[in-house]
Amino acid sequence: MHSFRLLKTSPRSQARAGELVTPHGKVPTPVFLPVGSQGTVKTLTPDEVKELGYKMLLANTYHLYLRPGIDVIEKAGGLHNFMGWDGAILTDSGGYQVFSLSPLRKVSDNGVTFRSHIDGSRHHITPELVIQYQESLGADIIMVLDECPAHDDSPSKVKRATERTHRWAERCLKAQKRPDQALYAIVQGGMSAELRQESAEYLSSLDFPGYAIGGLSIGEPKPTTLTMIEETVACLPKDKPRYLMGVGSPEDIVEAVARGVDIFDSALPTRVARNGALFSWEGRKNISNAVYKEMEQPIVASCDCYACRNFSAAYLHHLFSCGELLAYRLATIHNLNFIAELVAKIKGAINDGTFLSFKDKFLATYQPADEPTRLAQKQKWLKRRNLSQ
Amino acid sequence: MHSFRLLKTSPRSQARAGELVTPHGKVPTPVFLPVGSQGTVKTLTPDEVKELGYKMLLANTYHLYLRPGIDVIEKAGGLHNFMGWDGAILTDSGGYQVFSLSPLRKVSDNGVTFRSHIDGSRHHITPELVIQYQESLGADIIMVLDECPAHDDSPSKVKRATERTHRWAERCLKAQKRPDQALYAIVQGGMSAELRQESAEYLSSLDFPGYAIGGLSIGEPKPTTLTMIEETVACLPKDKPRYLMGVGSPEDIVEAVARGVDIFDSALPTRVARNGALFSWEGRKNISNAVYKEMEQPIVASCDCYACRNFSAAYLHHLFSCGELLAYRLATIHNLNFIAELVAKIKGAINDGTFLSFKDKFLATYQPADEPTRLAQKQKWLKRRNLSQ
Repeated sequence: MHSFRLLKTSPRSQARAGELVTPHGKVPTPVFLPVGSQGTVKTLTPDEVKELGYKMLLANTYHLYLRPGIDVIEKAGGLHNFMGWDGAILTDSGGYQVFSLSPLRKVSDNGVTFRSHIDGSRHHITPELVIQYQESLGADIIMVLDECPAHDDSPSKVKRATERTHRWAERCLKAQKRPDQALYAIVQGGMSAELRQESAEYLSSLDFPGYAIGGLSIGEPKPTTLTMIEETVACLPKDKPRYLMGVGSPEDIVEAVARGVDIFDSALPTRVARNGALFSWEGRKNISNAVYKEMEQPIVASCDCYACRNFSAAYLHHLFSCGELLAYRLATIHNLNFIAELVAKIKGAINDGTFLSFKDKFLATYQPADEPTRLAQKQKWLKRRNLSQ
Repeated sequence: MHSFRLLKTSPRSQARAGELVTPHGKVPTPVFLPVGSQGTVKTLTPDEVKELGYKMLLANTYHLYLRPGIDVIEKAGGLHNFMGWDGAILTDSGGYQVFSLSPLRKVSDNGVTFRSHIDGSRHHITPELVIQYQESLGADIIMVLDECPAHDDSPSKVKRATERTHRWAERCLKAQKRPDQALYAIVQGGMSAELRQESAEYLSSLDFPGYAIGGLSIGEPKPTTLTMIEETVACLPKDKPRYLMGVGSPEDIVEAVARGVDIFDSALPTRVARNGALFSWEGRKNISNAVYKEMEQPIVASCDCYACRNFSAAYLHHLFSCGELLAYRLATIHNLNFIAELVAKIKGAINDGTFLSFKDKFLATYQPADEPTRLAQKQKWLKRRNLSQ
């Protein structure tokens, strides 16, 4: 019911193109999953997500457990039915959210006790419960419960979290009952190359159908992120899909594909869209900038997304300046279309054997947010972020 | 370029079916105009508004003058172009908004000095300027500048405002240069039958191509609203369209059609949608009610709108409970679809000669908000309303 096959590997990089088969359709890789934590990709209907070319999306067990409750979705016949999405779904276990969103939590080997970020109510999850919840939700790909240390935690704390993540992964594997869902492991290990290798090797020995790289892009400098990806991928089996969790800026996708990653998810493209930052091949453009006030062309002249085909930059600027809800929707469509196009170009280049030159050309033109700004924004966001995603 | 013809009148009521011809297409009447004060029907694309069956919408000169500015829209080739809507548009002059939204205003015969509700900046408009702005925006139907007294203003104040409205209407008529726009007059007169008659008769003598009834549904009891409509309509020419401004609850539409009104606009259907109140033939349903938490059927089983065809009440309940933006959009689609269907049924009944029995049946089943609740809500809304609509 599930399979992954490699179709092409890049001759002088780790980049690869492949295909995931899931009970809800085939998904070519590399693939980016739009984030719909609460069972909705913010502002869009499932039809629109599909029209943008997406075949798989991500939802979150933590959010859905708190609202509307796992039982409500189970009674509705599962998450696909509940949210009206007939493509593939990957649910994160909620481990990361418990560690990043919950105001109070207590971790023991048994599991995690935490308080809801919504109403403060107390909850307890274990690796077994997290599998049970994800079996009730019925996603195609489900994730183990992991413990994600902070990027600046002490080495001993990171080691403890990594080892606990391994024990939990084994328990998740044992707890799994549904044969139609693929359960992926999550590699931790903080910012230590040794721990990353150890974690990847240990989890590889358990023969999961897929491997995620967790605990990255959580406030560490970008070169560290990329090194940790390399160290992890080097110890993962070649024939299994590799999923880099929570990473999804255009430049990060290109860099991580070059290092052998197949699957991505991130709220970044949709979140920055709602803040008025629109992707272009030169970098992000801030639609609130006064230069757009009277621009009759679309914000990206070459773009064929619904927003750019139908509306001028001036109109988008106006909608943002008024806080009109249509603004967030059009910007979301634009950014998800850009990511879909970027991933399609990456795939094409891998298949043509021209990935490295595509990468160089892309990175020479695309201007990412500079590193101090990026880190400052990330810290700020981690602190007072939109709790709902 | 503009015309109005009556196609059918109801034998035992004032209800009538007709057709408006505008430079942007034919519009059958009775017609309800969705409100897009800022050049967008909140949450929807122009395509969606069209798919719901609407052929004309309303935008507001006051809002567009403040943001993005009349010049921006003029440079974009007019409002149709700017917002991507190729159907008909009616722009309100902004008179009502100046009187209801501006924190400070000074009225003289010359015009109104007011402060922006957005940034407090000072502005001055005159009847001539309001016509000039609307000619730049380029709507199909434009409105005179009027002075709208409060529903409990003293008789002498109401009389002064009504007479000033008449003088301003004459000046607007003289100021009009574009022959391709239809300029409608606005009847005022507060809650006085005599003043309403006087106003309707005076303005009728000026031979405008259409007549609006202004200054109603602004906090007065419902029976007063209906009486004022009757008194006004009785003095308006039969062969001109009659437009009841700012009225659009389902029961009000039915009652006003019975009294001879052809055109309606109101932010109510879209505003209450965003608050989770969804129209059904039995009345409004509050999607946040716990009974919907697990309801697998759509909120209105018989409804064929996009939201009800694709999503359960439970899913909508969930989206509202999370404050997800898709919630407001689906609810807006539902309510605008309901109003479109209601107006289609009204038209059908007028054409079949069965309007009165349709009206009785509708009002027997449809449960409006009870009068004390409605008035309390209205007062509350007038006080701290969403300033952007």
